Amino acid sequence: MAVLQMVLLLCAGSSLAEDIFPPTVNIIAELEKLKNMDERIQKLEETLAKVLSENEAKKVAFSAGLLESGTGHTGPINTPKILVYKKVFSNIGGAYDANTGVFTAPVKGVYYFRFYGHSHGGTTMAVSLLKNGETQCSAFAWKPTSNGNASNGVVLTLETGDQISTRLWANTWVYDDPESYTSFGGFLIFPL
Amino acid sequence: MAVLQMVLLLCAGSSLAEDIFPPTVNIIAELEKLKNMDERIQKLEETLAKVLSENEAKKVAFSAGLLESGTGHTGPINTPKILVYKKVFSNIGGAYDANTGVFTAPVKGVYYFRFYGHSHGGTTMAVSLLKNGETQCSAFAWKPTSNGNASNGVVLTLETGDQISTRLWANTWVYDDPESYTSFGGFLIFPL
Amino acid sequence: MAVLQMVLLLCAGSSLAEDIFPPTVNIIAELEKLKNMDERIQKLEETLAKVLSENEAKKVAFSAGLLESGTGHTGPINTPKILVYKKVFSNIGGAYDANTGVFTAPVKGVYYFRFYGHSHGGTTMAVSLLKNGETQCSAFAWKPTSNGNASNGVVLTLETGDQISTRLWANTWVYDDPESYTSFGGFLIFPL
Repeated sequence: MAVLQMVLLLCAGSSLAEDIFPPTVNIIAELEKLKNMDERIQKLEETLAKVLSENEAKKVAFSAGLLESGTGHTGPINTPKILVYKKVFSNIGGAYDANTGVFTAPVKGVYYFRFYGHSHGGTTMAVSLLKNGETQCSAFAWKPTSNGNASNGVVLTLETGDQISTRLWANTWVYDDPESYTSFGGFLIFPL
Repeated sequence: MAVLQMVLLLCAGSSLAEDIFPPTVNIIAELEKLKNMDERIQKLEETLAKVLSENEAKKVAFSAGLLESGTGHTGPINTPKILVYKKVFSNIGGAYDANTGVFTAPVKGVYYFRFYGHSHGGTTMAVSLLKNGETQCSAFAWKPTSNGNASNGVVLTLETGDQISTRLWANTWVYDDPESYTSFGGFLIFPL
Repeated sequence: MAVLQMVLLLCAGSSLAEDIFPPTVNIIAELEKLKNMDERIQKLEETLAKVLSENEAKKVAFSAGLLESGTGHTGPINTPKILVYKKVFSNIGGAYDANTGVFTAPVKGVYYFRFYGHSHGGTTMAVSLLKNGETQCSAFAWKPTSNGNASNGVVLTLETGDQISTRLWANTWVYDDPESYTSFGGFLIFPL
């Protein structure tokens, strides 16, 4: 009876001993399976959390026009100058700083950037896209008779903290007005 | 015996009582774990279904050239006119309407759009990209001596149903032929 | 006693028979649930593995400037010529071949490509983007008085192995120098 007191009664829904014998269950193996499943679920939870967090981290994109309002030329200046785009169309993730014109990579990954420069006839326009201060690609229009229109874009692998900006060359001009011809933008294509 | 009839015989593979005693199993705790695992699996299934559905919803992209065939100028017109790009290169998700030139956001998210305008010498070209009828950014070439080539692009956060199109300004021209110089396109970068 | 020897003692932590009776457990149903959970976990593992593998497969992007070093015109040539961009900014997935100028789609999917051509005054610039040798879109500047600046871009659905390149037209020029004005790039937007 002492033993029976320790037995948990598992009712298989039958009251006949003959019916109870057939389903011999290896409970040790079942419990082992249970433990194994628990580990598999934990692995799934961790991996899925990583996917979700990566999906959230992917949400980096911005776009801005040069002038927030008004009309006019920027430049010419004696020394090259970072262009500060003030009319922010979007800035998801907040990686673009509209006070400095600099985009700072929030995560390691592969990014796409593009910029457009527009100028008036007779003035030279030259803008380069910089990574940590070094020219990657450029747009150039030497004293066009009518408007200068040039742009460029690039796919770059960035480390967290890498900085992207665009720089107006010395003695050159860009023009903008409320129609927004001169712009800068980019987004994370995928994290690494 | 009445009690024994209710006992489910769980064979642990041993016929010696001494061997059976050691693995004392708290079946209530195990069943609790089972229930907990069931809930965790359900949570995983729901989250993963959401990831899959978001991945499917992400599949929005299109691109089109102005003329499906033939050669010629579009414009000038007295009033601004939505450009209807007829040569559809791709339209995954079907959000671009080649009858109207309008892209309608199928999901809330962040999108990238870009357009290219090309014109012949002597004619002014001016095209703006519109969100729900309002100018976001523009491309402009005032009577270039040779071809006008200008473009722009923008990253925009759109609500479901927001409409994007490009509009030719009054009294301006764009040109296209089978080489496809004048084009419009965009895609969803990520849903929100 | 023979029967008792086959009983696995499941200690519910109680030594009173009255306490043991209440939690009647349908072990057959519980084991069925266990088997069902095992199947659900397997399904989750497979689906998640597919998501992860798709996320990895998505990592396709490249960008390159025309000249690796030096300064100069490419062209004019008598027959159209694939432009081979030598200054590789990025090439994740290795789909762009800097020896041939050709990008080969590693997976079926929707891709974005864009190219920029820059030329000097007086020379005609004309570049087309090709899919498996056929023109998709083009950029053209006929003897601009100052620089030629033209670009284009396109969203294309590609099968695995489809090839994308850009081709300089016969009797036309592009120019590049270390500032990188003439460039080509693209990336997978999503696999299909």
